[in-house]
Amino acid sequence: MPVAEIVSIGSELLLGQILNSNSQYLATELTELGIDCYWQVTVGDNVPRIKECLRQALRRSDIVITTGGLGPTADDLTTECIADLLQVKQVFDAEVLEHIAKFFKRIKYPMPETNAKQAWRPEGADILPNPVGTAPGIIWQIDPALLVPLDIADTQRRRVIMTFPGVPSEMKSMWQRTAKPFLAESFSGGAIFSCQLKHYGIGESALAEKYAELLNSSNPTVAPLAGRGECRLRVTAKAKTIDEARELVEPVAQQIRAGSETLCYGTDDDTLEIVVGRLLIERGLTLSVAESCTGGLCSKRLTDVSGSSQYIKLNVVTYANEMKTKLLGVSEDVLRSDGAVSAACAEAMARGMKSLSGSDLALSITGVAGPTGGTAAKPVGLIFIALASGDGCAVKQLTWPANFSRNEIRQRSASEALNMVRLHLLQKKDG
Amino acid sequence: MPVAEIVSIGSELLLGQILNSNSQYLATELTELGIDCYWQVTVGDNVPRIKECLRQALRRSDIVITTGGLGPTADDLTTECIADLLQVKQVFDAEVLEHIAKFFKRIKYPMPETNAKQAWRPEGADILPNPVGTAPGIIWQIDPALLVPLDIADTQRRRVIMTFPGVPSEMKSMWQRTAKPFLAESFSGGAIFSCQLKHYGIGESALAEKYAELLNSSNPTVAPLAGRGECRLRVTAKAKTIDEARELVEPVAQQIRAGSETLCYGTDDDTLEIVVGRLLIERGLTLSVAESCTGGLCSKRLTDVSGSSQYIKLNVVTYANEMKTKLLGVSEDVLRSDGAVSAACAEAMARGMKSLSGSDLALSITGVAGPTGGTAAKPVGLIFIALASGDGCAVKQLTWPANFSRNEIRQRSASEALNMVRLHLLQKKDG
Repeated sequence: MPVAEIVSIGSELLLGQILNSNSQYLATELTELGIDCYWQVTVGDNVPRIKECLRQALRRSDIVITTGGLGPTADDLTTECIADLLQVKQVFDAEVLEHIAKFFKRIKYPMPETNAKQAWRPEGADILPNPVGTAPGIIWQIDPALLVPLDIADTQRRRVIMTFPGVPSEMKSMWQRTAKPFLAESFSGGAIFSCQLKHYGIGESALAEKYAELLNSSNPTVAPLAGRGECRLRVTAKAKTIDEARELVEPVAQQIRAGSETLCYGTDDDTLEIVVGRLLIERGLTLSVAESCTGGLCSKRLTDVSGSSQYIKLNVVTYANEMKTKLLGVSEDVLRSDGAVSAACAEAMARGMKSLSGSDLALSITGVAGPTGGTAAKPVGLIFIALASGDGCAVKQLTWPANFSRNEIRQRSASEALNMVRLHLLQKKDG
Repeated sequence: MPVAEIVSIGSELLLGQILNSNSQYLATELTELGIDCYWQVTVGDNVPRIKECLRQALRRSDIVITTGGLGPTADDLTTECIADLLQVKQVFDAEVLEHIAKFFKRIKYPMPETNAKQAWRPEGADILPNPVGTAPGIIWQIDPALLVPLDIADTQRRRVIMTFPGVPSEMKSMWQRTAKPFLAESFSGGAIFSCQLKHYGIGESALAEKYAELLNSSNPTVAPLAGRGECRLRVTAKAKTIDEARELVEPVAQQIRAGSETLCYGTDDDTLEIVVGRLLIERGLTLSVAESCTGGLCSKRLTDVSGSSQYIKLNVVTYANEMKTKLLGVSEDVLRSDGAVSAACAEAMARGMKSLSGSDLALSITGVAGPTGGTAAKPVGLIFIALASGDGCAVKQLTWPANFSRNEIRQRSASEALNMVRLHLLQKKDG
C-alpha cells in the first residue's frame, strides 16, 4: 500500500495567521482513495528547511503532496527547492506562460513581469494545470536515478511529487480535475467507499446511543461526527473494488435511514437548503423569506443552490422596524406591545411576506443575534421563526446559549428555519 | 533565540476527521511570545512514528509542544512514548489521581478504571495541571544526560517538552494558566509584532512589484499574501519588547498606506463590510442593497457586522424579474430590450431601491452566477453592479473567468460591490 505525506509550505502558517484547512481537505480525500497518510508537516518559506523536509518526505513516503509556495514572488520557493534537491535544471514552459497571460487578459489586468516565474518547472516534471488561477503545479513521477544521491533506501519504488498552490479553491480544483483521478488510477490499493448520513434535530451522544451496536461494527465501520449543530454518521467500507465497498455500505445506510426517519435529512453533499429546494421542486411550490436578525443569510443559503430561481422569487431583509411595517404590514401595535423580537411579530412578518411575494410558503426570522442589543426580557440568542402556508402560520421560539457568537446564532437560526420548512414539506405534500 | 516545534498527535487528524485548529492557536501564541517556530508535525497514534517524531523535534528544536494522546484509552500513547524515548520509568502521582477522582465526582459520573492511567508521568517531569478536564500534561526540562543516547548535538542547550490534551478548550486553559507564563519567564527571547495591510483592487504580483524593495528588507520583514480576490502585505518586526517591535513596524506600515492610497482598505481584522460600515457611520449615511444573482450574500456580509442596524434598514433579493418590476419599478421595457442582466437593469434596480428604502445610497447586483443560465451574449460570470447616490448612479460591469465557481462569482461580485461603495464614500463625504 502506498503512503502519502502532506507538506504545507508557508511562514504564515507557522505564524498562525492562517488556519491549515488544506491538510484536512487532502487528508479526507486520501482516506477516500484508500491511500494511507502517516505524516503532515508544515514548514516556512526557507530554502534549507523546505529541502530538508522534502528529502525526509521522499525517504519515508511514496506520494509527496505540497501546498503553498507557487506564487510569483520571491518567497515562493517550492519549485526551486524541488529542482535543487533533485539536482535537475528548470525548464521554461511557453504554454504555461500563455495560460497565465490569458488569465490576466480575461480579468483585464496587465500581467506583472514576476508572473513569468510561474512558467518554470523542473525538467522531467509534468504540469498540473490550474484552471482557476495563475500558478500551475507539477505532477512528477521521479526517475529513480535522481533519488540515489539523496541517500534514500529502495529507490526503485515509484515516487511521485505533486505541488499545489496554497489558495484552497485553486488547490481543490486542481486536485479534483487532475491529481485525484491520477492517484486513483496509479495507486489503486483497493477501494474505500464512504457515505455520510446527515442528521438534524438530534445530538451526537443521543445518535451514538441510538446506534451503539453499529458503532462497534468493523467493515463497514460507523462513526459519528458533529459540528455546527448538525450530526453525521459516516459509514465506511473497504473492499477490492469500489462497487464491492458500496455494497457493504448500502444495507447499513438503509438501516440508519429507516431508524432515523425524518431526523436524517440527506446524505453526503446534501445541505438543508438543497433538500428544501428538492422538496419544493417536487411539490411545485415557491418559498419566500423575510429576515431580520439573520440579515440575508437564509436567503443567501437558499440561493447557494443552483436552480433556486425555480422556487425563490423574492426575499427581503427588513432590518428596521419601520420596514417591517412598510413592506410586510406588521402593525405598529404589535411592535409597540410585543416588540420586534416576539412570536406575534414573527407571525405577522411571515403572513405579510406571503402576501407581498405571492409565494406558497413564507418564512420569517426575528431575534437578537448579539453581541449587543440583549435585555433581561429579550436576551442575546432569543429568536422567533414562523412559517406561513396554506393552512395558517406556525411559530417556533429558539433560545441559544449565552456564549454563542453572533455568527453561530445566525447560522443555527437559519438552519432551524430551513429545517422547519423541510419538516412542513414532508408532512404537507400540497404546501 | 529558542525555537519551538508543535507536534500534533492523533490518527483522526491524519484521516481528516478533525481540523487542526490547535496548531494555529499555539503558533499565534508563540509568535506573540517572540518564540520562533520552524516546524509543525502531525503524526498518528503509532508508537514508532511518535517516537521518531519526538526524537527529531528534540534534535532541531528547543521547546517541543505536543497536543493529543493524553486520554485514558489504549490509543493514547504520548506519555508512554516520551518516557520510552528518554528511557526513564513512569511514576504514579497520587495527587493527580485525586484530581481526576474529584473531576468525576463533580460531574456525578463513576470514574472509569482506565482513567487511572492518566496519573502516570515520566520520572523527573512536572505536572502541567488541567483545570478543565481529566488529562494533565507535563512540563519537563530535560536532564541533558538523558539526551546523550539520542544522538543529539549540543545536549547542553536547555530543552523542554510540554504535553497538552487534544481538546482545544483544555489545551487553551492549560496554556494560558501555566505554559505561557512559564515560557515567557524561561525563554524570553524578545517579542514579535505583526501588522497586515489589506488591499483590494490590486493583484499579488503587482503589489509585490510595487513594494519590491520593502520585500527584501529584514527587520521588519514584508511579505505578500493572497486569497479570495484580496491581497495583504504583512509587516513583521522582532525586538526586545512588543512596544519596540511595534515602533519598527509602524513607519513601514505608514509608508505602505501612503503608497497604496485607496488600494489599501484596512488592517488586520478589517473586512470590506466593516470598513464600509465605519465610513457610513462617520458620514451619518444609510445604505440599502437590491440583489439578484448574489441572492442575499451582500446583505448577509453587511449585517455580519454588529451594529449594522445603524445604517442598514432594508435590503431585498429580487430574484425573479416580476419582483424587480413590482418592488423596484424596473420597467418591463428594460427587461424586454436589455434583459435582467444589463447595465440598464442594474441602474433601474439601484434607483428603485433608493426610493423604496429611502436610504442615502442604494447598491444593486445582477448577473449570471452559473453554473447554468449562461448564453453566448451573457455568459456565466457576467455581472453588473450599480450605486445610486445623491449625484446620480454609477454602473460597473464585471466579467469573471468562465471557470469560476458559483460561490466564487457570488463572493467576488459582492466584494466588488462593497468596494464600489467604499470608494464612493472616500470621494464623496456627503453621500
